[in-house]
Amino acid sequence: MLLSTKQAAELLLSKDRILVLCHMNPDGDTLSAAFALQSALSGMDKQVRVACSDPLPERFSYLYREYRPTEFEPEYIVAVDVATPTLLGPGLAEYADKVDLCIDHHSTNTLYAKETCLRMEAAATCEVMFDILHHHMDATITPHIADCLYTGIATDTGCFRFSNTTTYTHTLAARLFGYGASFVEINRDLFETKSKSRILVEREVLDSMEFYCEDKVALIVVTQEMIRQYEADESELEGLSGIPRSIEGVELGLTLREKPDGIYKISARTARYMDASRFCGRFGGGGHKFAAGCALQGTVDEVKRQLIAAAEELFSEQETEEERS
Amino acid sequence: MLLSTKQAAELLLSKDRILVLCHMNPDGDTLSAAFALQSALSGMDKQVRVACSDPLPERFSYLYREYRPTEFEPEYIVAVDVATPTLLGPGLAEYADKVDLCIDHHSTNTLYAKETCLRMEAAATCEVMFDILHHHMDATITPHIADCLYTGIATDTGCFRFSNTTTYTHTLAARLFGYGASFVEINRDLFETKSKSRILVEREVLDSMEFYCEDKVALIVVTQEMIRQYEADESELEGLSGIPRSIEGVELGLTLREKPDGIYKISARTARYMDASRFCGRFGGGGHKFAAGCALQGTVDEVKRQLIAAAEELFSEQETEEERS
Repeated sequence: MLLSTKQAAELLLSKDRILVLCHMNPDGDTLSAAFALQSALSGMDKQVRVACSDPLPERFSYLYREYRPTEFEPEYIVAVDVATPTLLGPGLAEYADKVDLCIDHHSTNTLYAKETCLRMEAAATCEVMFDILHHHMDATITPHIADCLYTGIATDTGCFRFSNTTTYTHTLAARLFGYGASFVEINRDLFETKSKSRILVEREVLDSMEFYCEDKVALIVVTQEMIRQYEADESELEGLSGIPRSIEGVELGLTLREKPDGIYKISARTARYMDASRFCGRFGGGGHKFAAGCALQGTVDEVKRQLIAAAEELFSEQETEEERS
Repeated sequence: MLLSTKQAAELLLSKDRILVLCHMNPDGDTLSAAFALQSALSGMDKQVRVACSDPLPERFSYLYREYRPTEFEPEYIVAVDVATPTLLGPGLAEYADKVDLCIDHHSTNTLYAKETCLRMEAAATCEVMFDILHHHMDATITPHIADCLYTGIATDTGCFRFSNTTTYTHTLAARLFGYGASFVEINRDLFETKSKSRILVEREVLDSMEFYCEDKVALIVVTQEMIRQYEADESELEGLSGIPRSIEGVELGLTLREKPDGIYKISARTARYMDASRFCGRFGGGGHKFAAGCALQGTVDEVKRQLIAAAEELFSEQETEEERS
């Protein structure tokens, strides 16, 4: 059943021993929503525990630093920012069919929980959480809760850059400033700090960069060797495939990522007019207009040759189409 | 004399043939404030011209694309975001002692204009401009003016990341969304796009990166050769000196920039506890706690040796001081 934020707040207020579940590969929004809820409910003398299938990332440690988990048999199970039960991950699979309440903003939510509080126009689950905590639970928004909620909206909107940012997102940020969110430190740690492994992988990746088709194509390669050499984990490789397209004049940005089995996973990003899914479709892949993927087998040079040939073809087809129209 | 935004608006409304001056090396705020004002006043059938000592950067072309300058003998001269007359630059030096009204937010404003509308708590001059245009001039905030004002606040706050961002900044961003600011495109062009020269210089600069003092020091070198080879201009070198300090665990980030006369200009950035101005003071330089500069002569290896020796000394002094206290 779908619930309003008011109904969700009333349910939460009526329970004790609440288990809050995050999604696997936790991001800023799922963790922030969980720890904001945990912090508010603990302040009301309820027992609350947060659980996640994966280890909590160190960069978000300020969200949970003061958090002392307690063991208890949960009376009520809440999932935050978890669109499908699979996203709970292997470590929380036992709860997949036992979620009492899901608080979320994903349009892909499968309504798997007994009750769901879903606001699809929200940029982040933390927007929904603020409404629950502040408007319907009358919880004190402490500086720590403000830090959590700010983190959720800042990470899910790329610091107010992405198209999901709304008037409400900025209005909420303004209010969280009033509640003492330490946005300067949070933004520095989240958006301006890179690990040494990340910067060293980035250096190698930039060294691999090549331009084709009169600089309309930029291509980078991420090898197994780079990842091994710098002991980079998955989160440290995030965003690399955005680099080629971020260059002025580049229409097609290609990232070739070598997988352990000798296959190259290709990520294609386009800037304005080229259809990335049409490009990847030639190799049995697919996706969206501006971001798509496919896989290719062969040496790195063979893979590059195939991709560039396809790009040249697509560019000239596009020109022919434009001439005709 | 200091004016309120209401008084500034009344003065502007009473004039025709208005010349609006930007500061040299124009940034997003000075250009946006100027073109927002130009656009609003032109809509009231006034003649308005914007002038700048330097060429207008291509990346801000959406601000002035539809702007057709007209020639006239100015009746009234306005400077926007220009803290001192020197900042008008050589091309506008003739106006240095002729500015009728200055609209600004810099605490360093020398009050050189006949009248000054200064709001030091504003994150950007565009915040002051919105107040003038919307509240006191009753100007229609068109999508173009919204684009301008959004650009000014987004660039001056590093997209809402820096400490100058306030509750008001976010509240204004929320309102500009309502007026149709194309924030997605603006943010992509301003914060996610790099020129090819910039990315190639960045690649070389990363290749030069070295770590010292158990990774507490990271050092990069920008040579004349790199700048020549990739035809990078000054704006494309911006922000490079922030790279070393942005690495997790780095306390002292050093950038050695080779000048044409064989001197190295050193930029020192510190993260948490080291005093950058104390460090640079050893070489006759100075600055602030977290950002300082100095100059050194010699080969790059000699310069590096001197800097690292000083860093080692300062780290061990700091440890001794901590032990004593």
